[in-house]
Amino acid sequence: MAKVGVVLAGCGVYDGSEIHEAVVTLLTLDRAGAEIVCMAPNIEQGVVNHLTGEQAEGSSRNVLEEAARIARGQISDIAQVKASDFDALIIPGGFGAAKNLCTFAFKGPDCEVNADVARLIREVIAAKKPLGALCIAPALVSKVLGEDKLPHRLTIGTDPATAEALTSMGSTHVDCSPRDCVVDEANKLVTTPAYMLAGSIGEAADGIEKAVKAVLELV
Amino acid sequence: MAKVGVVLAGCGVYDGSEIHEAVVTLLTLDRAGAEIVCMAPNIEQGVVNHLTGEQAEGSSRNVLEEAARIARGQISDIAQVKASDFDALIIPGGFGAAKNLCTFAFKGPDCEVNADVARLIREVIAAKKPLGALCIAPALVSKVLGEDKLPHRLTIGTDPATAEALTSMGSTHVDCSPRDCVVDEANKLVTTPAYMLAGSIGEAADGIEKAVKAVLELV
Repeated sequence: MAKVGVVLAGCGVYDGSEIHEAVVTLLTLDRAGAEIVCMAPNIEQGVVNHLTGEQAEGSSRNVLEEAARIARGQISDIAQVKASDFDALIIPGGFGAAKNLCTFAFKGPDCEVNADVARLIREVIAAKKPLGALCIAPALVSKVLGEDKLPHRLTIGTDPATAEALTSMGSTHVDCSPRDCVVDEANKLVTTPAYMLAGSIGEAADGIEKAVKAVLELV
Repeated sequence: MAKVGVVLAGCGVYDGSEIHEAVVTLLTLDRAGAEIVCMAPNIEQGVVNHLTGEQAEGSSRNVLEEAARIARGQISDIAQVKASDFDALIIPGGFGAAKNLCTFAFKGPDCEVNADVARLIREVIAAKKPLGALCIAPALVSKVLGEDKLPHRLTIGTDPATAEALTSMGSTHVDCSPRDCVVDEANKLVTTPAYMLAGSIGEAADGIEKAVKAVLELV
């Protein structure tokens, strides 16, 4: 039974992990017989009112506590997790991946990646374990692998501006439909656009299911 | 294309809608080609820290705003929704169904049901449209149909104390596994235990997929 880490970033598309992407990831892993290890950073995050789309000024929540909503309380502080604790790692998307796991949403290619997230990605690559990233999460993978001058291929869909930002950080970007995924066999890196492109939960789920299965096949 | 209302109760198993149950409902509906109409009451709720399981004393959040996280912002105030707006209605579970949509979690069979939720259930029954309820959500259906002296069959799984509470409100309770569902053909009422019994997301999803498909067949 493969043991798969899932990195969450809060709970909700605009300030946390995209909930549909995270749940479809968990469901596909569970149905494939994988054991799931959820984790998130124990840090504060801004809050977006998901009814209005507006920032809730002055409000903050804890990323680990909010991510625990998706994980039904079964979640670890990512600072306590090592790549030796699992066989593969998957990072769902949502703005939380670009606001809480790194600062790509604010700084683009000049972003910083959360120290524990960056450490874990480097451990996974060094251990030649598969790494999956959905939606906008490839941006933080791009930053880490780009800093390490490691050539790699990935997708965030087809958005030219975002693709260009990832190219400038060191990625080779491959256009991809939300019903498909891109597999970089050499680095065991699997990416899919999910809600970067998907118009419905079913469309996003098609690509995520393919990506999760590709990750498990690379274990 | 069937139009299906989904009643949400916040976002998170301990104080809102159970996230996995809600997302599997949305995914199954979307893949079946149904149009989805999410709704929630515009009321305040208590907050549970999902990392520790403890009540966050003095904190409150808005049910509609939190439910909007699951609905990606596409959600209506249930006060504005009528049964004529959709062809079928589904209510996922989680403690929010028993704390925010009614007070069953606090008062058991003496609970009150949110006025708009009760109104909508009565409209659905009167219009002979299908009604689905997952996990603990059958408790509020039991209260409304029991008050109306309408004989009906449903399940919350196998828990004897909860089943007895529903029986005392007027339901005929049928034991059911989380991989299956109970269909009361006469009332077009479909129920499944989901996380009242399921040990994993895949197990809950099996029953929810069956229940959602049964609801759609009754349209």
